Order: sequence, then structure tokens, then C-alpha cells
Amino acid sequence: MIFFNCDYTEGAHPAILERLSATNMEQTIGYGMDDHCKHAAELIKKECNNEKIDVHFLVGGTQTNVTVIDAALKPYQGVICAASGHINVHETGAVEASGHKCITIPSMDGKIYEPEIREILSNHYANGGDEHMAQPKMVYISNPTEYGTIYSKAELEGLYALCKEYGVYLFLDGARLGYGLASKENDLTLEIIAQNTDVFYIGGTKVGALFGEAVVISHDDIKPDFRYNIKQHGGMLAKGRLLGVQFETLFESGLYYEISAHAMHMTEIIRDKLTCLGVKFFVQSPTNQLFVILSNTAIAQLSTNYKLEIMDKVDAEHTVVRICTSWATKEENVTAFLADVERALS
Amino acid sequence: MIFFNCDYTEGAHPAILERLSATNMEQTIGYGMDDHCKHAAELIKKECNNEKIDVHFLVGGTQTNVTVIDAALKPYQGVICAASGHINVHETGAVEASGHKCITIPSMDGKIYEPEIREILSNHYANGGDEHMAQPKMVYISNPTEYGTIYSKAELEGLYALCKEYGVYLFLDGARLGYGLASKENDLTLEIIAQNTDVFYIGGTKVGALFGEAVVISHDDIKPDFRYNIKQHGGMLAKGRLLGVQFETLFESGLYYEISAHAMHMTEIIRDKLTCLGVKFFVQSPTNQLFVILSNTAIAQLSTNYKLEIMDKVDAEHTVVRICTSWATKEENVTAFLADVERALS
Amino acid sequence: MIFFNCDYTEGAHPAILERLSATNMEQTIGYGMDDHCKHAAELIKKECNNEKIDVHFLVGGTQTNVTVIDAALKPYQGVICAASGHINVHETGAVEASGHKCITIPSMDGKIYEPEIREILSNHYANGGDEHMAQPKMVYISNPTEYGTIYSKAELEGLYALCKEYGVYLFLDGARLGYGLASKENDLTLEIIAQNTDVFYIGGTKVGALFGEAVVISHDDIKPDFRYNIKQHGGMLAKGRLLGVQFETLFESGLYYEISAHAMHMTEIIRDKLTCLGVKFFVQSPTNQLFVILSNTAIAQLSTNYKLEIMDKVDAEHTVVRICTSWATKEENVTAFLADVERALS
Amino acid sequence: MIFFNCDYTEGAHPAILERLSATNMEQTIGYGMDDHCKHAAELIKKECNNEKIDVHFLVGGTQTNVTVIDAALKPYQGVICAASGHINVHETGAVEASGHKCITIPSMDGKIYEPEIREILSNHYANGGDEHMAQPKMVYISNPTEYGTIYSKAELEGLYALCKEYGVYLFLDGARLGYGLASKENDLTLEIIAQNTDVFYIGGTKVGALFGEAVVISHDDIKPDFRYNIKQHGGMLAKGRLLGVQFETLFESGLYYEISAHAMHMTEIIRDKLTCLGVKFFVQSPTNQLFVILSNTAIAQLSTNYKLEIMDKVDAEHTVVRICTSWATKEENVTAFLADVERALS
Repeated sequence: MIFFNCDYTEGAHPAILERLSATNMEQTIGYGMDDHCKHAAELIKKECNNEKIDVHFLVGGTQTNVTVIDAALKPYQGVICAASGHINVHETGAVEASGHKCITIPSMDGKIYEPEIREILSNHYANGGDEHMAQPKMVYISNPTEYGTIYSKAELEGLYALCKEYGVYLFLDGARLGYGLASKENDLTLEIIAQNTDVFYIGGTKVGALFGEAVVISHDDIKPDFRYNIKQHGGMLAKGRLLGVQFETLFESGLYYEISAHAMHMTEIIRDKLTCLGVKFFVQSPTNQLFVILSNTAIAQLSTNYKLEIMDKVDAEHTVVRICTSWATKEENVTAFLADVERALS
Repeated sequence: MIFFNCDYTEGAHPAILERLSATNMEQTIGYGMDDHCKHAAELIKKECNNEKIDVHFLVGGTQTNVTVIDAALKPYQGVICAASGHINVHETGAVEASGHKCITIPSMDGKIYEPEIREILSNHYANGGDEHMAQPKMVYISNPTEYGTIYSKAELEGLYALCKEYGVYLFLDGARLGYGLASKENDLTLEIIAQNTDVFYIGGTKVGALFGEAVVISHDDIKPDFRYNIKQHGGMLAKGRLLGVQFETLFESGLYYEISAHAMHMTEIIRDKLTCLGVKFFVQSPTNQLFVILSNTAIAQLSTNYKLEIMDKVDAEHTVVRICTSWATKEENVTAFLADVERALS
Repeated sequence: MIFFNCDYTEGAHPAILERLSATNMEQTIGYGMDDHCKHAAELIKKECNNEKIDVHFLVGGTQTNVTVIDAALKPYQGVICAASGHINVHETGAVEASGHKCITIPSMDGKIYEPEIREILSNHYANGGDEHMAQPKMVYISNPTEYGTIYSKAELEGLYALCKEYGVYLFLDGARLGYGLASKENDLTLEIIAQNTDVFYIGGTKVGALFGEAVVISHDDIKPDFRYNIKQHGGMLAKGRLLGVQFETLFESGLYYEISAHAMHMTEIIRDKLTCLGVKFFVQSPTNQLFVILSNTAIAQLSTNYKLEIMDKVDAEHTVVRICTSWATKEENVTAFLADVERALS
Repeated sequence: MIFFNCDYTEGAHPAILERLSATNMEQTIGYGMDDHCKHAAELIKKECNNEKIDVHFLVGGTQTNVTVIDAALKPYQGVICAASGHINVHETGAVEASGHKCITIPSMDGKIYEPEIREILSNHYANGGDEHMAQPKMVYISNPTEYGTIYSKAELEGLYALCKEYGVYLFLDGARLGYGLASKENDLTLEIIAQNTDVFYIGGTKVGALFGEAVVISHDDIKPDFRYNIKQHGGMLAKGRLLGVQFETLFESGLYYEISAHAMHMTEIIRDKLTCLGVKFFVQSPTNQLFVILSNTAIAQLSTNYKLEIMDKVDAEHTVVRICTSWATKEENVTAFLADVERALS
């Protein structure tokens, strides 16, 4: 059985495991105050070309989203997001459990756009704010989104300008950021993202690490006491250096980009072949998640050897499946899979 | 200036004020454990023809909604409601502040229907539940809804059967319940509602009381320790007898129904005349809130003498306004208003 | 049966009921934006001799405590209070339910003092703060306290200076403030309190109103968006003018002070007589709550005609009981009670 | 610099790193549903000699404490614990952030005992419960405690019987459980603990793992939907198998006990020598944390080569320091340290 269902089916890139072994017997202080974390933070600041940002390391995505949102918002404030956004759908109400409302915008492609966001903001703040409603104080986007789509530099700059206009925060969830940056369609960099968001994070869990997300804070109001928020939300790893060591490895000599480029290369092979085979895509994703429409019989046939993520039904006989690649995807498996797809479709 | 904007512009029905005066110097124990509260609860049990229900008195609507939802749900559980529902729109994220997600269904008329609810429930529970999503464990409806619409007996029974099928609670917000029961289209009674919900409340604030909502609990799982929930949510009035006295007055000899009938009579007069004048209704409401589409110039003209609730824009020149009646609406004001509307439209 | 167990056994001072009746049919906008609330706020500002304070009206004490604390604190911040403080003991964990830790100081008399508070603050902030602990960011005191004791002007100024030194808020719960101000030992005024706290409130529920607490905010950081907090915590009364009307009545011509003086006069009579009779006091309270130690047989005998609040056991044969007076206490009842106490003790 | 300040200064036991490497390229499903987690759970069930318990794996201690407490309690319920307990002191108010009050008992040795617990429970439940107070519904203990002390079998059975008597849960925090079980004074086993608690956990972070805590649930009311709680609290690791692999390694052939025995052996050497040197102990700890009183000059001298945890001041010239051993403590370092202590004291 070969897994194409998601991008976190293996452990970590071998370089990370090696580094964990090499540093294993070092004695360090805990909770992310060690030299590895400091070094990793320096590497990320360099990558963002910005010394003024704060960098923190957390373990997982839900935890990171909740910690950032709860750190930034007051109890009566909510966060604008796509109805399909991870925080709205797949976090078991964790944002609400920390007290904040997700103010949703319907989305077909996982992205949200200026007009709908502006409408919410202008309606709320028209007369200085309506205290009978949750106050929209943050815009949450993910890049890539749940549907693998990405924002352009122009779009991100537009959203950030809108947020500044209304005094709300822009937060970018980068759980799969590496794959976004490696997309052919991408014109963002970490530096541009750091300039055009108030806070974002660089995903490690899905991009080569055992686990870990690096939060980058630009806005001065979100910086103070952020570690209290991490601790309270259960995200402060006792052996914090495990996060530092992993992000050191990813950013010391470009491994993060290398890993992502490999995944995107595997995706390109799959997308090109599926396109040739006439397979229809549910959404045009330029990143490492492909959403394709297959007949149920083809899916059944493929499922004996391959694990795919079953998404929504299209009609009685067709279903959307997600096909993911990652740093760990082997070209030989891709080749075998595509041959089997061809067989299943013929 | 005459107010038609909402149904809580005056104080209380005179009979209530009189009773508060008459009982003012009685010494009672606090927090709703006094004889007036006991008596009022007995009256409501009789009205529901059900001795097994629990009755509690709270001060206001937001407080009541949050207390009931938080008492019934576990932290990871959410409540299904109309996107236009009061808990989703007009409670400043109070439900989320107590940790629970509102799982929304788009609605044009304020009501939600079996197919959309069933889809959410069947999707979630298909394989025993998906722990990555908030667990839908309650259905919230209001009757009348935010748009003045009401549920029929058949609809309520259908929703309750669906809820029982999936083991979720049905909660009916009756902030304006009196006006719903007094509607010509209504075929519900308090008894039927008590039989076909797990918990509901009888609104006093908008139906003749100074304030107060009477919660009726049928489901045994929501009953235990409910007073702890009231207290924790700040809803336990020190001089609880004020609530008991008010609901005694409302239910001792049918004042609640009488009040509501008066309001509906005033509404009928308004609706009939507006219909004659060719005014369009944004939604067909059979209760005490009318949502009518007027030209902005007519609205401007009327606004010198009347306070109306300005709702959404229809187009550049037309807007929806809400016209409410209540126990306190005077027929002479209705007559004057309708004459002025006629002038404004001609 | 005559009640001396607490100070909220009757309804409201007759002047308040009269004013509610007189204004009953006025049509006003809701939620505390009406002219009565504006006027009442002006009266309180005048009383505090301070135009820069913000004044808000809420319904009850638990609600008020939670709303103020939650408005002022970030999620990881806690509030220092006496272990016996109302927020720590008698609010069913409402402060914790809004996410904040009560950081307690043992107290014999209900008060907390500078040394213990300073120890907590200096320990925490010694090295810029310890993110593994809840951050103490507010000091909560009540005046009078749970044991009827009060703070002097010098003490309050000392606490406020300490709070300013550490950048934490000072919050004074004045649920029984009237009785504190009317005490012979008191040297505080509303003006002094407003100058030496960041936020406090003037209790109405226990001092002549049907219900209601007037929050006075001095610190600029707590002012913005305070109404969102009120609404979210279920404290925004639809017919907000009921609060305005009550506080207008209390502060228009000194009724608040008059009521309190009457209660203190009644208390003095009780205290003097009990002292003559050799009754021991559990704590020396200069306000309207007396905590006296009586034999269980005396308590049993008195309980046939009087309701007293049974507090803690002293030993197998003695118990502390609370005796309260209020605006509504009748001198004839006091006389009868004291005669019966004398009989019970002889 | 050699670290004796805590028991999580290194990475993981080498056997764990090896196993992570060996399994690194396996493809598994995520979130703890993989075969390694299943196998690890089976091993723990066998160790507890109980097939009916549920076993879950979480990342860290704060997260685990909060998840368990929030899963077990209703919003108005609180948890009884030592004032010195980890949940009360060192989790940045995380328990309160999830809405629950810590109801504290002063403790000199980190333990809580039946009389004080019984007093809280009997006071609260005397008349069926007092809804003005947080309802005590769980007793939290840790073993070893914050001061390294442990509970005997008889004590644990006594506490559990008390909890059953009042219908409250007994929760044992075993972050350092291995060192407790390896103590010479210990007469507990995992089986006995599983029989005499409703829920407990086996700490990995401090006992040889990179991270990870294994929760064992005995009480049927805490079992349902526990994974929703994990997910909502951000504790569901995407690559859950990392936890399974680590606990497999720890429990497959007794590594957990072996590690703990080593640490205790190192502690015995230190304790014996310090006792010979006349060093005073702040508390008698039979586990891997020693709390010793040293002169400030001795501490200063030792601090050039050794990292010790500085605890509380005893007087102007003496301070309590914590000395910890772990699976990773090297005997040669212990020898060197003790020689240096001897020098510092002479």
C-alpha cells in the first residue's frame, strides 16, 4: 500500500533525524530558551530579511492557530476566514473553545477576497462598531489554502492594505507554506510575507519535520508576553530544543526549499499525466495537493494499492479525491501509481 | 416621536408594576428560591400540562441562550442554527465565548429545515463521528424567528424526531414566543412545544415584563445542576422574586396571551393597510414584526415622527425597515402612522 | 418571620418603584443608550467630581465582576484577591469560566494588605515575568469586604500606589459600597475611590434598588469597547433605562447616602445592645453586616421568629451568624429582635 | 557545565532515537490511529493488567492535564488540588483558561490528605450542593509530587474510596511516574494505580522520551469522545505514530523501569553523600528530585560548573536548590559533583 492521501505519512527528512541524534546528549535548558532555538530564530529572521520580527516555535497547527488568534484578540473579537478554512472546519471548534468567533465567507477555491472582507469590515465599523456583534479584528488566510490554491503578491498586499485601513490583523497560516513557495505560480517570498502580514507561520510538520511550526510576528501588539500564550495553550515543549534543531536543519542551507521543490516536481508529473488522461480537476491547485474527480469504480480499483483521501461526492458515480506529494514521495511510486491510474481509467 | 422600531421600548404592563409594588415589602429568600418563583413555575407547568419539566427564570435573552447551550453541551460540541439566528449574529460571540461553535445553515426566512440539518448530522455521524470537527449536538431554532416567521406543529415534530434520531438536543428560543402563539397561522401551544423540544424558553422581556425569560427543560440530561450554570453565567438575580412575581402576573389569568393578542391585532391593522397601499414585504411574517420595503425618501419623511428599525438596503433607493408592535402599542398611534405612511407614499 | 440574614430581602426603596411607574410608558431606545442612563451617568460623574470616567450600568454582581475582570485582563492574566473574596468563593467559578485565575491571599478579616500583594507581584515580575505562571495583572478588593470590614483612605492610596508601581489594575467591588461610606470609621468618598482605583462599582442591588450595579472606569485601557464586554457576558439589559431610572433616583438628591445611613443606624443599635449583652463578635465589622458568635441553643430559639445567616461553626456548641440591616430594616423589628436575643441569652 | 537542575535536559534514550530512525520511512495514517499507537496501548493495558482501560497519547504535561480535566468536568465544576500542585502554580492558568477552578489545599510536602479533601467535599455536598460555589468534582494528585514525595498504596486506596463516596473523580498526574515507581519506598504498580484512579498518565517527557504522556482512563464517563477533547486542546499530533513508537520502546521490554531505576540509583548516591556531609533537606523526597538547603556561597561556588534549580530562600544566607537525576545522568558527573559539593562545604 502506497500513501498519497496526505503529506505527513512518514517521519522526518533524514537530515533532521541525524541532527536530532547528533545533538541528543547535549544538555540544554528547556522550553525553547536554548541555543538551537535562538539559532533557528536567527536563520528565519535572516530569511525574512527582518531583525525586528519575533520568532517562536510550536508543536502543531491547531495549537498554533489557536495560540496566535487568542494572543491577538480580545474576548469579544472574532476572526474573518473562509468557510472552508482549517480553523472553521477541522479544529473541533478550538478557536471557539478559546472564546473567539469565526466570521465566515463562503469560498469555492479556499481563498477569500477583498470585496467580501471589506463588506464585513465596513458594515461592522460603519458607525464606530456594533457591540451586539462579534467585532471582526483579524483576517485569517492560509497559503496554500485547503484547496491548494495560493495568493499572489498583489493579492497579499491588497489584503494587508485593507487590514491596515480598518486596524485589523492579517494572519497567514503557512502549514504548507513550503509547497506554496515552490509553486510555479508563486511570486511570494518569506520576506514579502513578513512585510505583508501581522503574523504568519512556517509549517514544519508537513514539510520535512517530525513536527513543528515557526511563528513569525511582525505586529508589535502581538509580541508582548507571547510565551505566556504558548504555555497556557499547552504548546510550550519541555525539550524545546527539538524544535530549534529541526528548524535549524531546515533553514541552514535551504533544505526547506529543496524538500518543497521535490514535492512540487512529483506533483507536476502527476498533474501532467492526469491532464493527458483527461482527468478533471475539482479545483486548479498549483501546489502539492491535487483534487481530482474520479469514477467510483476507478477509485475502488486504485484503493487496493494506494491510499487516497476521499473528499466530497460529485454525483452518484463520481467523487473528488485528494492526491498529495511531500518531501518523502518517491518517483518510482509516482510512476507506478500513474500507470495504475491509466489502467483504471481505460 | 412614536417608536415602532422594536417591542421593548416601554417598561412593563401596568399589572406587573402593580404587583411589584404590592409585594415590595415582603421579605423573601433570594436567588429564585422564594414562593413567587415556585408559584410561577407551577403556573407554567400547568400551562405545559407537564409536571416533569423543570422551570427556571433568567433575566435576559443572551444570558439565557448561553446558559442553556453551555449547560447542555460538552466543550467540543456545537449548535446548529440559522446563519441569521440571534445566537450567531447578535450576541457578540457570547456562545463562542462559552466555548461552543455555531454551525450555520443559510436561511432566507429565518427558519431552518430538516434536509439541511440532516445533512450536517449524517455527514458528521456517518462513521461514528469525526473528531476533527466540532460535534453537532444541539439544534437551535427561534419561534418566531428573527424574521418573524414561525414553525408549524408538523415542522416542530419533524425537527424533534430528527433530533431524537441523532441523539441531539432541540432548543427553541422563545424570546417573542407570545407573539408567535398569537399568530393566526400558529398551531402550536406551550404543551406541544414542551413535548417537542428538549428545552425552550418563554420570553418576558418583549412580552410585557420589565425583563425575564422562563426556561422550560424537558430533557433529563439538561436538568441536573442547572442552577450552577445560571449562577456561573451571571444570570441568578439576587432578588429572584422579581422574576417570579412577573411570571405569576403573566400566567395567572392569561395576561401573556392577552398581551400578545393585542400586539397581533395592531400588526394585522398595519399589515392590511400596507398591503392595500401596495407596500412590498421583504418576508412574509405572520407575527408582530413586519419587514417592509420602503423608498428612502418615504423613510426619511416618516423618520421625523416615527422611529423605525432600518435593516438592509435593497437597492440604491429602497431599504427594508422593521415595524414592530407590542403589548404597549396604542391604536391611535397605529392610525396616525398609517395615515402618514399613505401620505409619504403618495 | 423577620429576616436579618441579608440585605436584599425586600424589593426596592419606594421612591424607585414610584419612578419606575412614572416613567413606565415612556418610549426609549434600548440597551442603556437612553436619556435616563445618560443622566444617571452624569450624576455619578458629578458625585465623583470627574468628567473623564466612564460609567456603565449592569444588572448583578457576579456579572459585573466577571465583565470587568474579563475586559481588563488578557487570557493568561490573573487577579489577586483575598481567599475569602466573593469572586473566589461565591461565584461558582465564574471568573475562571471566563478564563482567569484567582491568585489568592489568606485573609482573616476579608481585607488584603500591601506586603502579601507586593510579595506576589515582586516574585512574579522579578525577572520580567515568569511565563509558567498566570501573570498577576489586577488586584481585586471589596469595600466593604465579605466580613464587613473597610479600607481607609491611606490604605486605598497605598494599594493604588503599589498597583501603579507594578502596572497592575486596582478593582474595587462596591456591591455594598453605600454601607461602607456610611460607616463611622469611613474616610473614603466616591471621589477618592475614583481617584485611587482603575475601576470600581457602586452597588444598587443591596442598597435600595431592585437590582443594578454602576461601574466606574478610570483607567483608559479598560474603557474602549467596554459595551462589547457587557453584551458578551449577558449583562446588557434590553430595557436598560430601568437601570438609569434607578440610579437617577438614588443619586439625584442623596437617597443612596440616606438609605445607607439608615441601615448603619439600625446596625449601631444592634451592635451596642449585643455588646452590652456580652455577645462576642467573630470579626469587628464597622458596616451593616455583623458577625456574632452565638450558642446553638440561642440560635435555635431565635430561629423560630428570625431568619439569620448561619455561617461557620466555632465549636460544638457555638456558631457564627450574620445579622444584616438594610435600607428596609424597621426599627420596631430591631427592638423586638434585641429583646428576644436578650431572652435567648439569659 | 553539567546540568542537575531538571530531568529533561537531554533528548531521548538512544533506543528511542534508534526506533524512530528505523520506522522513519514507514507510511502510516495520522493522529494516533496507526499500528504503533495501537501496539503501545496494548503494552500499557498489559502492564496495567486491564483490558477495559482506554489509552491515549499526548505530547506534553500541561496539555494533558488540561485535556483530562476539561474532558471530565462540566463548566461549573472544579478540581481539588494541593496549592503547590503543578496545575495550580506552573501552567499559566491553563486549567482556568479552559474554565475550571482549582480548589486548593495548603500542602507542605506536595501531597494532599483525606481530612482536608473530605472537609471540602462534605461542606459542599452537605445539602446536596451549593450552587453559589464551584462544584468540587475531581481530586488531582501527582505522584511523585512537586516535592518528589509519593503516595503509598494505602493512601491511594483511601483517596479513591473517598472519591467514590462523593462521586468525584480521582486523577493522578504521573509526569514523573517512573521515578516514583522506582523509589525504595514505593509500593504502587501501574496495575494498582489503574485500579485506584479514574484517570492517570504515565509521563514520557521526563522519563526517557523526546516527549509524550500516556493517558490511562478507567472511568467510563471520561472515555467517550476523548479524542475530540485531545484535538480541541491542540494535543493531537499529526504524526501520532511518533508517540506510539516511543511508548512501544519504553514498554516492550521494561526500558521504562530500567531508566527509572538508573535515575534512582544516581539519586541514592547523591542523597547518601549529602547526608554524610550534613546537608539538610528541605523535604524528605524518596524520588529523583532532591531539595537541599545550601549556603548561598556554596551555591555560588557550585554554579560555575553545575546548573542547579534555585528554589525558595530559607534565610538571608541559605537557599533551597533542587538536584535532579534522570535516565541520562552519568555516574562520573555525579562523582565529580559530590566532590565539588564537599569542597564547597568545607
